[in-house]
Amino acid sequence: MSCDFLALAKSGVQHLMPYQPGKPIDELERELGITDIVKLASNENPLGLSPKVKALLSDNLDELTRYPDGAAFELRAKVAATHGVAAEQLVFGNGSNDVLDLIGMCFLNPDVSAIYSDHAFVVYPLMVKAQGARAIEVPAKDWGHDLDAMLAAIEPDTRVIFIANPNNPTGTWLGHAEIERFLIQVPDDVIVVLDEAYSEYIHGVDYANGIALLKQFDSLIVTRTFSKAYGLAGLRVGCSISSVAMAGIINRVRAPFNVNTLAQLAATCVLDDSEYLQQSIAVNDAGRQQLEAGLSALGYDFIPSQGNFISFDTRTDANAVYQALLEKGVIVRPVGPYKMPGFLRVSIGLEAENQRFLDALTALAD
Amino acid sequence: MSCDFLALAKSGVQHLMPYQPGKPIDELERELGITDIVKLASNENPLGLSPKVKALLSDNLDELTRYPDGAAFELRAKVAATHGVAAEQLVFGNGSNDVLDLIGMCFLNPDVSAIYSDHAFVVYPLMVKAQGARAIEVPAKDWGHDLDAMLAAIEPDTRVIFIANPNNPTGTWLGHAEIERFLIQVPDDVIVVLDEAYSEYIHGVDYANGIALLKQFDSLIVTRTFSKAYGLAGLRVGCSISSVAMAGIINRVRAPFNVNTLAQLAATCVLDDSEYLQQSIAVNDAGRQQLEAGLSALGYDFIPSQGNFISFDTRTDANAVYQALLEKGVIVRPVGPYKMPGFLRVSIGLEAENQRFLDALTALAD
Repeated sequence: MSCDFLALAKSGVQHLMPYQPGKPIDELERELGITDIVKLASNENPLGLSPKVKALLSDNLDELTRYPDGAAFELRAKVAATHGVAAEQLVFGNGSNDVLDLIGMCFLNPDVSAIYSDHAFVVYPLMVKAQGARAIEVPAKDWGHDLDAMLAAIEPDTRVIFIANPNNPTGTWLGHAEIERFLIQVPDDVIVVLDEAYSEYIHGVDYANGIALLKQFDSLIVTRTFSKAYGLAGLRVGCSISSVAMAGIINRVRAPFNVNTLAQLAATCVLDDSEYLQQSIAVNDAGRQQLEAGLSALGYDFIPSQGNFISFDTRTDANAVYQALLEKGVIVRPVGPYKMPGFLRVSIGLEAENQRFLDALTALAD
Repeated sequence: MSCDFLALAKSGVQHLMPYQPGKPIDELERELGITDIVKLASNENPLGLSPKVKALLSDNLDELTRYPDGAAFELRAKVAATHGVAAEQLVFGNGSNDVLDLIGMCFLNPDVSAIYSDHAFVVYPLMVKAQGARAIEVPAKDWGHDLDAMLAAIEPDTRVIFIANPNNPTGTWLGHAEIERFLIQVPDDVIVVLDEAYSEYIHGVDYANGIALLKQFDSLIVTRTFSKAYGLAGLRVGCSISSVAMAGIINRVRAPFNVNTLAQLAATCVLDDSEYLQQSIAVNDAGRQQLEAGLSALGYDFIPSQGNFISFDTRTDANAVYQALLEKGVIVRPVGPYKMPGFLRVSIGLEAENQRFLDALTALAD
C-alpha cells in the first residue's frame, strides 16, 4: 500500500526546490509578534490599489458565481489597442508566471536545452527544471545579461532563451540596438522570451522596446505583467505578446479559465488609468533616489536598477542582516538563490517605508 | 526568419484542441443582439455570490497590490479543519483545473499512460494529451464509469487514473463500497485522482466519500472546487487532498502565487457560510425536480444526475436545438466532444431560469 511516488514523478520534478516567496506580513506577525511592519520584499506597488479599479471591483462582485470569460474579450481588446498589436497576438495568464509556465509546457522537454543568465529571475530555472529540459546558465557581465555569451552558449538542441529586461533581482537592463543585434543572430528556430515585467518603470535610458521588435522576429515572445506598475499583484494577471501563430500554440495548453473575472476587469480598467501609472512611476523614481542616496551614505554598494527594487551588497552575512531587519519589522529579500550571497534586495516603497528601511539599516551599523 | 514552431512543440501539444467553454452571456449579446439571456451552460451556482463573501471582498480590495499568500495559510487551516485532514495534505490551485494540470505535470509524460472513462470531464483528455501521455479511454456503462473495465484497462505503464464522481456531463455517481473495492485492486504505484467537484450537491444516495478513503490509500488524490456549490467560479480556487508526501510532490510544480488574494479570502469565508451551502443544495434539489419533470413531460429522456446539471437526449441534431435555444436567449451546453452527439447539458438554475429553458424547449417542439 506504500509507494515512492516521487520516484515516479518526472525526473525534473524530482530535483525541484520550490520557489521561496517574500515573507508575508501576516507570517512575520505570527512568528515574531511584531506589528507595524514594512514589507519591501516582493517588488510590489506601494501606492495601494488604483481608486478607479477599486470602485469598479466593488460594483462587480455579484457575478463571481459565473466562470470568467475564457477568451478575455474586453481585456484582450484593451491590451491590443494599448500596444498597437492584434488581439490574436495575446495570451493571458494567471500572472506572467503562468504564461512562462505555458511556454515551458509547449516547448521544453528532456530532449532540449534552455538558456538563461546567472542572477536571472528564478522562475526560469524552476520552470526549465520542472520540464526536465537541460538548463544552460550563462555567466553575467556586470550583474547583467551578457548577450554575446548567451549567443555563444546556444547549442543545437537549444529551444528557448529567457531574457529579463530589466532583470529581477539585479535591476540591470538592455538597450534596443543590443537586443536587436542579439535577435538577428539567434537561429530562427530558437524562441526568445523577453520578460518585461518591470518595463513600465524605465525611462530616460536606452531601453529595448520588445513589442516594437515583434514585427521583425517571429521567434520573439514578450511577456508583461499587471503586478508591478499597475498594482494588481494580488489579482494575478499577465500576458504574452508574440506572433499570432506563436500565441495559437501557447493558447493550446492554457487552462480555459486561468484569468479570474476581477483580474480581467481590473487590468482592463487600469490601462485607462494613466494617472495611476504616472504616479507609480513618479513614486518609484523618487524612492529610487532616496534609497540610492541612503545606501551610499551608509557606505553600501548597490547595483544601479531600472526596476522597482535595488540589490545592495551587505559586505557581510546577508542572512544575518535580513534577520536583524526582520526583528525591526522591515522585510526585505535575501537573494542567495540568485548566486548573490552577500546581497539583499529592497523593493522601492513609499518615502516613509524607504526611511524605515534606511533607519533600520543605520541602527544595525551602530 | 520564419519557422514552424508548432512542429517544435511537444508532440502532445501538436494534437491538442483547446477546451470550448460555455458561451458567455456577453458573447451571445454581441453576436445576436439579444438581451435578457439565461445561461445554463457552465454548471454555475445560480444564487449569486454569498452576501457574507461579498461584504468581505468589498472590505479587502486595498491590499491587492500585494502578492497573495503563496502558502494560503488561512485557507489551508480552514479547509483542513473542515475536512478533518492535516494542512500539509492540501494543494491549492487556480480552480481544481490547475491542480489537475499540476498532477499531469508531475506524473505524466510520453512514456506512460493514463486512464479515464468515456463521457468523463474533458479536461482529463486535454491534460493527458498536453503531457504527451498515452490516453486509455474506457467505455462507459449506463453513461457512468465502468470501474471493472477501468481496472482491466490498467497496463504496466499506467501512471494515473482519473475518476469524476459525480461525473460531468453525465451526472452519474459511484458508491462508497464500489470505489473502495476498486482502490483495493488498483496497483500501489498507480495514482487515482477522484475529482469530487460536485460532491457537495449529493445527498440521499450511496456516494463514496473520497476524503474518508485517503487514510487507506496512499495513491489516492481527491480534488475539490469552490466553483460549484460554493459559488466562486469567477474567482478560481480549488484544491487537492492527498497524503502529505503526494501533496509535497504536487506542490513542487505549483506556481508560487497561483491562488489570488480574493479567492483565498472568499473560499475561507464561504466555508463558514453554511446557510449559503444549504441554500445552494436546496435550490439545486428543487431545480433538478423541476427540470426532470419538465423534460419528462416533453418526452425527453435524461440521465439521472447528482450534479447541478442534467444531460438530456434531444433525439435529433443537438446542435440545431442548441442554436434554436440560443436564439431564444437560453444558453445550454452541447456535449458532442463527450461522445454524446444527440445530447445537450442544461445546468440547474433558479426556478424562473429553469422555466425559461423549459418554455423555450416547448416552443421548439411546437
